[in-house]
Parts: sequence; structure tokens; C-alpha cells
Amino acid sequence: MADELSLAPLISKRHTGEPDRFAGYARYNFIGGHNDPEHIPIDALVRCATTSLSREGRRLAMYNLGLGPQGYPPLREFVAGKLCSHRGATVDASQVMITSGSGQGITLVCRTLLDPGDVILCEEFSYSGAINTFKKFDVDIVGVALDDKGILPSDLKSKLAQLKREGRKPKFLYTIPTVQNPTGSILPAERRETIVEICRVAGIAIFEDECYADLVFEPHSTKSLLAYAPDVVIHIGSFSKNLSPALRLGYAIAPLPILERMVSLKDDGGTGALDQIVTAEFFSEHFNAHIGELSQTLQKKRDVMVDALTREFGTSIEIDVPAGGIFVWARLPPATDVRKLLKPMSAAGVSFNAGPEWACSPEDGANKFRLCFALPNEEDIRDGVAVFAKVCFDTFGFPSHGDNKARRSLTEEASQ
Amino acid sequence: MADELSLAPLISKRHTGEPDRFAGYARYNFIGGHNDPEHIPIDALVRCATTSLSREGRRLAMYNLGLGPQGYPPLREFVAGKLCSHRGATVDASQVMITSGSGQGITLVCRTLLDPGDVILCEEFSYSGAINTFKKFDVDIVGVALDDKGILPSDLKSKLAQLKREGRKPKFLYTIPTVQNPTGSILPAERRETIVEICRVAGIAIFEDECYADLVFEPHSTKSLLAYAPDVVIHIGSFSKNLSPALRLGYAIAPLPILERMVSLKDDGGTGALDQIVTAEFFSEHFNAHIGELSQTLQKKRDVMVDALTREFGTSIEIDVPAGGIFVWARLPPATDVRKLLKPMSAAGVSFNAGPEWACSPEDGANKFRLCFALPNEEDIRDGVAVFAKVCFDTFGFPSHGDNKARRSLTEEASQ
Repeated sequence: MADELSLAPLISKRHTGEPDRFAGYARYNFIGGHNDPEHIPIDALVRCATTSLSREGRRLAMYNLGLGPQGYPPLREFVAGKLCSHRGATVDASQVMITSGSGQGITLVCRTLLDPGDVILCEEFSYSGAINTFKKFDVDIVGVALDDKGILPSDLKSKLAQLKREGRKPKFLYTIPTVQNPTGSILPAERRETIVEICRVAGIAIFEDECYADLVFEPHSTKSLLAYAPDVVIHIGSFSKNLSPALRLGYAIAPLPILERMVSLKDDGGTGALDQIVTAEFFSEHFNAHIGELSQTLQKKRDVMVDALTREFGTSIEIDVPAGGIFVWARLPPATDVRKLLKPMSAAGVSFNAGPEWACSPEDGANKFRLCFALPNEEDIRDGVAVFAKVCFDTFGFPSHGDNKARRSLTEEASQ
Repeated sequence: MADELSLAPLISKRHTGEPDRFAGYARYNFIGGHNDPEHIPIDALVRCATTSLSREGRRLAMYNLGLGPQGYPPLREFVAGKLCSHRGATVDASQVMITSGSGQGITLVCRTLLDPGDVILCEEFSYSGAINTFKKFDVDIVGVALDDKGILPSDLKSKLAQLKREGRKPKFLYTIPTVQNPTGSILPAERRETIVEICRVAGIAIFEDECYADLVFEPHSTKSLLAYAPDVVIHIGSFSKNLSPALRLGYAIAPLPILERMVSLKDDGGTGALDQIVTAEFFSEHFNAHIGELSQTLQKKRDVMVDALTREFGTSIEIDVPAGGIFVWARLPPATDVRKLLKPMSAAGVSFNAGPEWACSPEDGANKFRLCFALPNEEDIRDGVAVFAKVCFDTFGFPSHGDNKARRSLTEEASQ
């Protein structure tokens, strides 16, 4: 036999540098959209697996359970019902498709609508997964300003006017109106109406992402944008945040010509069958109770994290207290560049989302960061934020006080 | 509110024509890689769901069960063990990645290796899903001749020599040596050795697809190509055929630089967790028994289908009797074009795979077709093949005799 052959030279020229490698998780894991491990309803899921597998088992012999590529009908019915009962929209199961995570939904919307050179609108700070997907489609991304309530209609109008002067019409506005990612705001009803009207007049689609909308901390009356304008809105959601991100389940609702094209482009051979049937079984019965308990726990964790950040950072930080969801978005003084924290934080066992990845224009996010609080317990949130503050002090010289005590650097502490 | 807005004009210019729509299944469904509904082990799957969910449930709070993007370790261990015990290869779980169906494996191999303008080698008749994926990567596909035992080493050599004269080196040979799709052959051991040596000398990868290798009808001693040359072979397999295609589970084994790149390119947020944990639990215990029973049933169905084709078509047909798997590949007389059958077959309630879709050069498949036999029961196989022969007679004037009786056309029969 000849010497061992290395296939490495056959790798595509497009791949330069080392591939990303999974290196496990940080001791204080504040990234990644994970969920609260105490709120996985294990016993109920076991019962639902038994019931649904016993009933549907024979269907496993066929692709898509023999029910077509749009997804398991009872799960689509649950989604349609939830959008009616909780989000004020009138949706029929025939308008719902199940996706393998909301990320697939984003990709399918892009594959359906985008041509290279197109322009799209996006909130200036937004979900990094969506921003990264948009970039792969070779489109120009124009950021629209946010305030503490969400997207600013005046800026949306002015960005559209500017593009019109340039002879360009965006394909869509990507927006996360309910528990904005990363700022955690909920857009007030009157702004929703205004934004829908602006987009309708401009003839562009609204691409609404409601991945966190089930997890809100105070009663609120805002309806999904889909409720205002089913003809203009392409709506996606997820089961990652309200149940489990290890199940790969999301959904999309769109006007028929868009939905049919999205279904025809779904080329994964279907979404995992057990994930679909067990989730449909569980949520058809336990949705309100589960969401209620989970949201309560998340609200407590949010409070712990906001308290910890305030205590450790004092006046060096501005925090958007989120109205729901699983993350806090915070601003450090303007000249700060949080990318300098990435290496020392990693060495200190803390992972966090640096603002530039969550911004249409990366430099706008340089002094900002996102911390997720669903996965760690309350003690780890407090301890992790304390380490975060220390690393920040070691790197930037602030916050020099935490909890009314002068801060020492990690190095000093370690040498004690 | 303004008039309803149609988003249809926003659809990408790339999409012309109507989108594919799911229209249900034909009465006699001979396509699609489905499985035998009687052999879904429902009770065992319920037990395995209970055991695995009870044990791993808390992990559902994290993406990839908190275990990284390479897949659920017990499922990777099962795959490694099976390749050692059943396919003669020495594989460690660290070399295995789980994919969301083997289709994702094919896409990831292409994304890892291919640049536009590359050339690849492929058996002249091959899996349509793979051929279609290759085409999307803008590569030239060169077909290598098959006989009734599989790929012909002499033709592989001559195709490589021809390419060398043109100054071109293929990236890989895509081959299905064990239960070839669509011909159903098992490549003899001596040809395996020769092919590995030819590819090694040429410095190209072998992309081995073993999706059907667990389902063989007679004892055979051939080992996976991976057993001969782990440094040269990228190997994929599936749980669609040995368990269920509604579960979206496949796997890939590759030399480290290729595998790491494939894992880093897997951008679906992970493979469905319940599908993974339940399958690992079930196959860790029941693999041999399940495969044994399923193969026995499939062998009986193969015999029923071969008998039916022989009885209905007599001398008008040449059949490759498959050594395993779920399909029969057949040839009609040379001048026939089976594409003319698609519409009347559909009208008569029969679906089948037309040869051109399963050929590197579509015209080479014009007189050939593939019929899958796992899904229909024995009666439906017999009845469906009879309808198939009648539609063929109505379209082409043959076979004029079936079962020693002169055939009447469907129209005559309906008017009785």
C-alpha cells in the first residue's frame, strides 16, 4: 500500500484559516440562547412521547410522516391557534410551515426573496444569526435606529426616502418587535400601526421575527405585526426559547405565493419527526402553564442579572432592562471596545456576546454587549457578572468599585 | 387601510415557473425511499423514548444537548461500533459526525471540497439526490461505467487518464459500492481493492455512500471501502433506510481535516435531539434483530416485485435483481423513453422513478426506471406492477402479453 494520502489539499479554496472547533462551554456561560434546565418538563415529555409515538409510530415509515413537507399538521394547528389566542392574528394551519429551527426560516425567506445586490432594512442592533445570513446573500443591509421602545418610525421613513432617491427599493424590513433581540424592548401598539402603514405604502415586506414573544414578564396588549397586516408580513417563530433549542423546531407564516415557494425550497428532507410529534402533543395541552412558569423564573433571573450588573458596574454602565426574553443588553462608556475583552474573559471562564456581532454596522456595537441569563442559576449569574466586572477593570481600569468596595484585579486576587 | 399588497413581485428573479407543490401520494407509490410500515418498532421506540428522555431530558435546555455540534456521543459510538462489527472498518466515535439526514452529509462534503469548475466522478447511474446536489455546485460530472457487479475499474482508469490528458484532476469519486443505487449490486472485494488503489494513486478522495448497506439479502463478506483506506475515504450513511426516513438522521466519517471542516460548516443549529437520543437507545440494543427482520421482509417484497415484473413484461424487460435495499432497476427496449410514461402513470395512480433522473447523462437512462418496494404491501406491489404494465402497453404497445394472457388497454377495460 502506498503512503497515507492527505485529503487536505482537496479542500475548497474558499476555506481559509482554521475551522471553528467546539471547545466546550465557559464556566459562566452567558451566550447561546440556551434555556433554563430546571424548566424542561421531562415527565410530561415522556408521557407525550408515549402517547404520540403510539398513535403516529407507523407513519415513521414515510418521509415527513407521509404528511407532506409543510410539517406535522397538529403542530401547525397549535401554532395557528397560539397566534390567534396570544398574538391577535387570524391564522389557519394551512398558512403555517414548520421549519428546522427559526434559522432555517430566515434562510428560506432569503432564498425566496433575495437577489445579489438587493437592499434590505434591519434594526440597527439585531439578531447576529439573521445578520450573518443576510450577509451570505450579498445584499446591502441598511440599519434603522432603535430607541428604548424599539424601531423608530421616523428613521424608517427617512431611510426609505433616502433609498428612493437612490432609485432603490428594499425587499423587506427585518424586525423583532416583541422582545427585541438584543435590546429586549416591546414595540408599542401605535408604532406597530405606523410601521405597517409605512411598509405597505413603500410596497415592501415586513419580515417579523417573534422568537421570544412567548416569554414576557408583564401583561402587555401588543399584537403581532401579522395581526395588523397578514398581506404584508412574513412571520417566523421558534420552539427553541419557549421549550428547547436542542429540538430543532421553528415555524413560518407567509402570504401564499411566498409560503409555497419557501416550502418548495425546504431541501432537508423534512424536520425531525419525534421533535415535531412530541412538541405538538405537549404544547397542545400545557402551553399556558409551561410558559407562565418559565417566564416567572426568567423574570427572577433577569432581576438577579440587572442587580448584579448595577452593583458591579455602578455608573459605568447603562442597561436596557428587558421586558421579556433571556438576555440583557448593556452599554459601556463610548470609547470602550468590548472586543478587547474577548480573550481575557475566555481565560477567566466567562463567555459573552460582543456588541459588534449584533449590529448592522459593527462599530456601533463596539461599546455594547449582551448577556444571556436563562442557562446559569442565580448564584452563577451573580458570580459570573462579578468576574466579568473584574476582567473589565483589568482591561479598561473600570469599574473601579463594585458593591461599594474598591476592586482589585484578578491577578492581585490570584496571588493572595 | 390601503388595498391588499401582493408580495409576489418581491420574489427573487431566480425562481421562474410554479413552485413544486405536495399533492399527496399515488395509489401505487413506488418512489421516495420510504420504509416498511409493519417494521417500525413502535413499542420498543416508546420504551427507548422513556429511558432516554428520562436520562437526558435536562440536556434539552442547551443547543446540541450541550454536547457540541458533532452529534450525540452515544449515537456516534453506535455508528463507530457498527462500522467495526458489520463493515470491517476501524472507526472511533471521535471520527463520526451526525448529520440531519445523509443529504446533509452530501451537501457538507460538497461545501467542504468543491469549487465551481471542479470535476468529479460518479457512477453512470446513481442516486438522483446526490446528482442534483453536485449540479448545484457548478461542477462537471463524469460518469463511470457500471456492470452487474458495480463500478468497472477499467473505465475508472480510462476516465482518469482522459482527464489527466486534459490537465484536470477530479476532487472525488462518488460511489455506492454496497447495494448500489439504483442497480442494487454489491461490488466484489477484489474490485474494491483495485478502485481504492486507483484513487490513491490519482490522489483523489473516494466519497462512499453506504445508505443501504445494512439491508442485504444474502450473507456477503465485502467490507466498506472505509475498511481498506480510511485516509482516502469520506464515508456517509443513514438511519432513513434501516429505521425511519421521518427521523432526519445520517452520519459521516472522514479524515480529520475534512471532518473538522464539515462540522464547522454544519449550520442548522444541530440535528433534532429526540430523533438522536431515541435512535441511539434503540439501536444500541436492537440493531441486529431489527435489521435481520426488516431485511427478510424486504427480500420477500423484492421477490414479489421481480416476479410481478417478469410475469407482466416477459421478454420486454431486463431486471437487475438487487442484492439488498428497497428498489428494482429495470431496462425496457433501447428506443423507449420512459418520460412519456410519467403523465399517464400519474393519471393511473402509479408513481415511479424515471431513469433520466438517476443518470449522469440523462439520455442514458431514457429506457430505464426504478421501482421501490419497501412501502407497498405484497398485494399492492402485484396490482401496481400490473397497472404499470398496462399503462406501458397503452403508451408503447408493449408488453402485449402479461401472465400468458393478451393485454387489453386501460381504456377498453374501463369501458367494460
